[in-house]
This record gives sequence, C-alpha cells and structure tokens, in this order.
Amino acid sequence: MKKFIAEVLGTFFLVFFGVGTAAITGAEFGILPIATAFGLSIVAAAYGIGAISGAHLNPAVSIGVLCAGRMSAGEFVQYVIAQVIGAILGAFVIYLIVSGKSDYSIATSGMGQNGYGPGYGGGYNLAAALIFEVVATFIFVTVILGVTDKGAPVGFAGLAIGLTLTAVHLVGINITGTSVNPARSIGPALFVGGQALSQLWVFILAPLVGGALAGIVNAAGLTRADA
Amino acid sequence: MKKFIAEVLGTFFLVFFGVGTAAITGAEFGILPIATAFGLSIVAAAYGIGAISGAHLNPAVSIGVLCAGRMSAGEFVQYVIAQVIGAILGAFVIYLIVSGKSDYSIATSGMGQNGYGPGYGGGYNLAAALIFEVVATFIFVTVILGVTDKGAPVGFAGLAIGLTLTAVHLVGINITGTSVNPARSIGPALFVGGQALSQLWVFILAPLVGGALAGIVNAAGLTRADA
Amino acid sequence: MKKFIAEVLGTFFLVFFGVGTAAITGAEFGILPIATAFGLSIVAAAYGIGAISGAHLNPAVSIGVLCAGRMSAGEFVQYVIAQVIGAILGAFVIYLIVSGKSDYSIATSGMGQNGYGPGYGGGYNLAAALIFEVVATFIFVTVILGVTDKGAPVGFAGLAIGLTLTAVHLVGINITGTSVNPARSIGPALFVGGQALSQLWVFILAPLVGGALAGIVNAAGLTRADA
Amino acid sequence: MKKFIAEVLGTFFLVFFGVGTAAITGAEFGILPIATAFGLSIVAAAYGIGAISGAHLNPAVSIGVLCAGRMSAGEFVQYVIAQVIGAILGAFVIYLIVSGKSDYSIATSGMGQNGYGPGYGGGYNLAAALIFEVVATFIFVTVILGVTDKGAPVGFAGLAIGLTLTAVHLVGINITGTSVNPARSIGPALFVGGQALSQLWVFILAPLVGGALAGIVNAAGLTRADA
Repeated sequence: MKKFIAEVLGTFFLVFFGVGTAAITGAEFGILPIATAFGLSIVAAAYGIGAISGAHLNPAVSIGVLCAGRMSAGEFVQYVIAQVIGAILGAFVIYLIVSGKSDYSIATSGMGQNGYGPGYGGGYNLAAALIFEVVATFIFVTVILGVTDKGAPVGFAGLAIGLTLTAVHLVGINITGTSVNPARSIGPALFVGGQALSQLWVFILAPLVGGALAGIVNAAGLTRADA
Repeated sequence: MKKFIAEVLGTFFLVFFGVGTAAITGAEFGILPIATAFGLSIVAAAYGIGAISGAHLNPAVSIGVLCAGRMSAGEFVQYVIAQVIGAILGAFVIYLIVSGKSDYSIATSGMGQNGYGPGYGGGYNLAAALIFEVVATFIFVTVILGVTDKGAPVGFAGLAIGLTLTAVHLVGINITGTSVNPARSIGPALFVGGQALSQLWVFILAPLVGGALAGIVNAAGLTRADA
Repeated sequence: MKKFIAEVLGTFFLVFFGVGTAAITGAEFGILPIATAFGLSIVAAAYGIGAISGAHLNPAVSIGVLCAGRMSAGEFVQYVIAQVIGAILGAFVIYLIVSGKSDYSIATSGMGQNGYGPGYGGGYNLAAALIFEVVATFIFVTVILGVTDKGAPVGFAGLAIGLTLTAVHLVGINITGTSVNPARSIGPALFVGGQALSQLWVFILAPLVGGALAGIVNAAGLTRADA
Repeated sequence: MKKFIAEVLGTFFLVFFGVGTAAITGAEFGILPIATAFGLSIVAAAYGIGAISGAHLNPAVSIGVLCAGRMSAGEFVQYVIAQVIGAILGAFVIYLIVSGKSDYSIATSGMGQNGYGPGYGGGYNLAAALIFEVVATFIFVTVILGVTDKGAPVGFAGLAIGLTLTAVHLVGINITGTSVNPARSIGPALFVGGQALSQLWVFILAPLVGGALAGIVNAAGLTRADA
C-alpha cells in the first residue's frame, strides 16, 4: 500500500512540476525551463520517495522493469494504476491553478499536453512522432535499468535518470512535447480534450513499446555489465 | 549558538542569491536564471554550513521537521528567529547594491518580492496563489524529509533539495514569484512595502500549512521507507 | 562484443540527444539547450552503460586512453569503429525525424554539423577553429583521465565529464559548433554533405591531436595525483 | 612542482571556459550560459586535477585557506603565481580565438573583463561593486572551506563549489561581471586594457578581503561543524 501511495505521489510531483511549467510558463523563453522541470521532478521523487517504491512514475518504466524480470505482473498493474491516478491529480491541481488566471484559455494555450502534426510544436508528422517516442523511451528505460543495476554506484540513480529525462525533453519538445510516459500524457489530455485525446493512443503505445524493448534487450544481457 | 549563526548565514545566502538574482537580473531572459539561483543557494548552504544546523533556511521546513518529530519546539523557535534575521540581512545587502544603480527604482522594479493578483506576474488570483504555495511547499518538505531520512544515501541531500527548489520556482514564478518560505518573503517585503506587505500573510500562512502537512504525513509513516 | 555494443549504443545516445537538439530545436533560444543536451547525453551513457565499456563514445577520448597506456591498440580500433557506427545510426534517426517536418530543409537548416568560416556560426577562421578544437579536447580528455583515475571518488565521473562537455560547448558552439569528437562530426556530415564533408578533416584531426596530447601529458605523470 | 602545474592548468580551464563564453557567446541570451560556464569550469578542474592541488584556481580562495590555517604562506605565494600565469594563458588563448573572427573588436565587445560604473553592465557604482565582491567572495570561500572540511561527504566538493560559483555569477554579472577571483580579472584586463586595467584594483582587493574574512571566521570556528 505504501508503494502505491509513493507512486501516486511521485507521478503527481512529475506532472505538477513538468506539465505545470509547460502550462504556466510556456515556451516564451524556449524549451530549457520545461525540460529542466521534468528532469528535476524525477530528482525530487527519486530522492524524496524513491526508497519506498523505486520511483518509476511511468508505465513505460514499469513495463521495462517487468520485461527485465525485476517485477511481477501483479505489481506492474498496481504501479500503472497508481501512476495514472497521480498524473490525473497533478493535472487537476494545475487545472485549478490556471483557472485562477483571468485571461487563461485552455482552448488556445493548452495545458502541457502532448501531440503532433499541423498546429502542434514544429509540425512533425505521425511517423516522426512515433520514431521519436519509441527511440527516446528505449534510451530512457535503458539508462534506468543500467543505473539501478546491482553493481551501479549508490545514490546516483536519481540524478542520472532525471538529467537523462531533461535531455529527452530537449530533443523532443518541438516534436511531440515529449511524452515517453503514458501517465504524463493522460493527465493533461483529460482536461484539454479534443486533439489531445484523439492523439493519446500514440503516447500510450509508443512509450510502452520503447520501454518494453529496453527491458527485453536488458534481460538478454546486452546492456548489463554483469550478464 | 553555532546552529543559530549557521541558520542566519544560510538564509542570508538564500536571499542574497535568489532574491538578488530576481532584483538585479530580472526576468528579461525568463525564469530559469532566478529558479537556478534559488536552487543553487540551497546547494551552497547545505554543503557549506549544513553540517552545523542541517540548513533548514526556511520556517516551513522547520515546521515540517517539528511535525515529523525530529526537532523540539524550543529549537524550532530559535531556528525561525535566525532565519528571519538572515533573510532581512540578505535583503538589506541587496537593497544596498540596487541603491548603487542610478536608474533603479524599487517602486517600479520591486526587489524580488512575492505577490499575486492583477499587476503581479501572470495575474493569478488568491486561490491559485494559495493552492500553489500549499502544494509546492508540501512537495518540497516531503522531499526534504525523505532525503534526510536515516536510510538515504549520504551526501545527496543538498543537491536533491536544491534542484527540487529550482523545479518549484519553474512552476511558480509566474504565479506568486514562488515563496514556499516565509523568511524569504519577509526579507524583501520590508524594503518594498505596499502590496508586498499587505499580501505577506499569504506567504507566511500557506508555506507553513504545506510544510506542517508534509511533516504530519511523514510522521504517520506514509512517506517514510522505514516506517 | 558487449563492449562494442555499448560503445555503439552510447555514441548513438550522444548524437541522438546532442545533434538532435541542435537540429530540431536550433539556436533560437541560444546555446544553452544544445550545450546541456550534449553534456547530459554523457551522463545518460556513463551511468546507463558505462559499467560495460567505460563509455568513451569518442575516438579522441579513446586515443587519450590509448596514449595514457590504459587500453590496447586493438581495443582502440574496435572502440573507434563502434563509435563511428553509433554516430551514423544516431544521425540517421535524427534524419528520419526531421524528414517528418514538412518545412524542414537540410540545405538551409543543416543538421547539427560542425564547421567554420564565413556562413558558419560566428564566422571564425580555420586557425581559430583548430586552436579551439585542440585546446578544448585537451582539457576534456585531461578531465576524463583524471576523474577515472584509481584514487578518484567513485560514481562522480559521469557527472563531471558530462558537465565539462557542457562547458566545452558553451565556449565553442559559435566557433565550430563544438566537435571535440570525430564520431559526432562524421554522423551528421554524411547526411548534410557539401561543406560539412569538405571541412570534416578538421574535426577528425584536431580532436585526435588534443586527445593524444592529454594522454601523453597524463602518461608523463604531470596530470596524475599518484604518479 | 606538480601542484604548481595543476594550479596553472586549472585556472587556465576556468578562464578558457568562463571568460571564453563571455567573450565568444556574449550576453545575447542572458547570463545563464556565462554563469554556467564559470561554474562548470570548477567542476572540470576539481574532478580533473583537484586531487593534485585542491584546485583553488583563485587567490581569494588561497588566502581563505591560508587564513583558516590550512596552508603555509610559502605555498600561498606559489599558488597565487601559478593562478595568475594560468589565467593569463587562458586569456591569451581566448584572445587568439577572437582574433580569428573578422568582425570582432575588443574595443567594442571587450573580452569578458570585469568592471563597474557607467557603460559597464547595469551601471552600478563603485560602492555596489565593492559590497557585491566582498560579500560574494565571503560566501563562496565559506562554502569552499565548509565542503572541504574533514567531516564533509567525500566527492561532493567539486559539484557544490562549482554550482555555488554559478549562483554567484547569476547575481553579479550585471553588477561587476562577477570576479570573486583576482586571477580571473587580471587575465582579460591585460588584453583589453583601458578601463579594465584602471578598475582592476577593485577586483584584486575586494575578493582578497572577502576570502580572508571567510578564512578568519572559519578559523574562529563559527562556520565549522567540528570546532
């Protein structure tokens, strides 16, 4: 039960900081503030509550851990439910806050949702979105599985994972807004609706594929130092 | 006595770097420089003088530590007094420096004070300000209590807490200027006066509520790995 | 074989994040996002797969390690082949992604390639490019050899090396786009062609000279604590 | 002798990265790139060659270490000579590089030198410059003495000191360009001449006063955990 609460809380942190910065600050001064907020939300969760649940905060991470044989299917399902609840709660609090700004319109400003195609970010097509999300999630989960392996130096995982997520966002914000995390995409999509909902399948499917691939390659020993 | 001096000094560092960057550099190039300065002031204080007092630097942190049962009420009062003194000293030095710029007007440029409502930042209303400050302080103090727990990896607390404070600022600078720290708000408000003083109760009350909540949840064992 | 795969993967990470951010985000908001992406790609690779191969990701690093007497000539050749393969794969994936943006033209926007002279960055001449690349690679490889030495504190190497690479980019992006890594330069040059290919010798030669010099100075004991 | 070389090299790194970013990149995108480059140059030097000399790189740091009773007067003099040589070499290499840009004029663009008063940065007066430099150096050297103390967690000093220097720059770039380091100021002043030379006494005197104060307070035990 405490693991469940920790995953709810941690994913809440992720959406509050990451989606919150995207929604409230926007891209007026570029992508670095948003990329930094997402990355540092992992640092906060990993060091703050990571000792309880491992701070997955992301179904794509959990599927990678599952495929790497480090987690049971039952625990996987519980983690994913907790992550989706935490993400929705985070998006709800951000929704309450932006509702307190008289000239804020979700219809025009959005709320940090993911997307692709004409009118979203740099206008990249579906193929580019799928390639980016699968490859970036594969890299992200490969790094997570490597840095949390038995031989890895103690204490550095939270920093390494958070800073990797910042790098992932620096590449991808103009392509898809960077998901690599189905829960993070579900949260704001429920409040924004429209295209954010109709494109949501991309940000559920592609990260899960990338995460599962990373888990399978790790289980095969190709990205493990001790195997 | 040495703990008292360390809290004065550390809170002085926080206001000198954080409020100083807000006052002297401003938001011309966005919020990342200010968010970074606040976060790194914690890194400076935690590694520089944290071994003496724990580097709370913030009454909301101290109330969380108090509610988590890790500090006595008498020590809490001493810490808060030291923090407020340090913050006022920090704001005074920044005041001296901006007074050395011929075209600087506190009336128009302010001095890194917190606020909300029309004419402040993004124009968020009181409800948004309260929600943000309570939730952000809750997260911030939850991370602090987690990363300074007995089982946590040694040495990482200063980095994790500082980088979390940067994330907190990335979300909140446009809402309230980000307080999550009554001492940080009191310092510049005394020099700026006016609305900064009349709104000051928000930045004393909300962070204390958020910090106390984090302490209570931690004491209940919900956010502790060993409980 | 696993070391070979790790060097392919790690150099793929480097080009995907670093060149990807340069190609997709561009310099609209300055050089810090690109410099950060390159630095954090090292953090990702070092903590994710560094336990397998040491995460050189760069022929100039491997030649430094070779000259410092820590690697055999045969292993050096294998590392360099793996690095070049990884860099080309990374550039290919970025090429696929930018091909999915309707208004993207490699001819006008490039793809994060290195260069110098009129029409590239700040318009620095060949001498400036050579001096920068040799000196910056010398510093970069000196730091790598120092922080991976026997007496160095465990676990910090990935952060120290990655953050140094960010500093190297902050100085050099306006001069040459910052190579300090022949593999990183070969990847995008193959897809961009033209001047990127005709100037490529600079970004193969200068980093190798700088890296070799760092290895020789280290082998002589001048930059080693224990020698 | 190896300590001497390490201080020359490390101060060379500091000026190459920090002054180099200021001279080559400028402030078009704000102060964060320059502040980051100065901070990360410390990370590079501390982890790369810090095991040899301690990586002071700064006469104000060495005077603090001297006043704290951790260094002899003879060694202090050698360190300062090495630091000034390293800084001049670093400024010379940056001078060579900017000389390779056809439209670069040191007279109008400067070369990352420190200064104050009308026409420099935000136009702060001498009093503001002195207050900032003394206070900022006092904080910087207090952090250094604390984090390198016997009881401090191993390995974190380089990160903590570098990130503190970034915070120092975020506050001070608009005031004085941020010196807190006489060697860093001497390097570019010799190549820029004029006002940079006539104001140089401020950036020699004020940092030495701030650093000595930090050393004296530390020696008195006020900022030491074990005293």
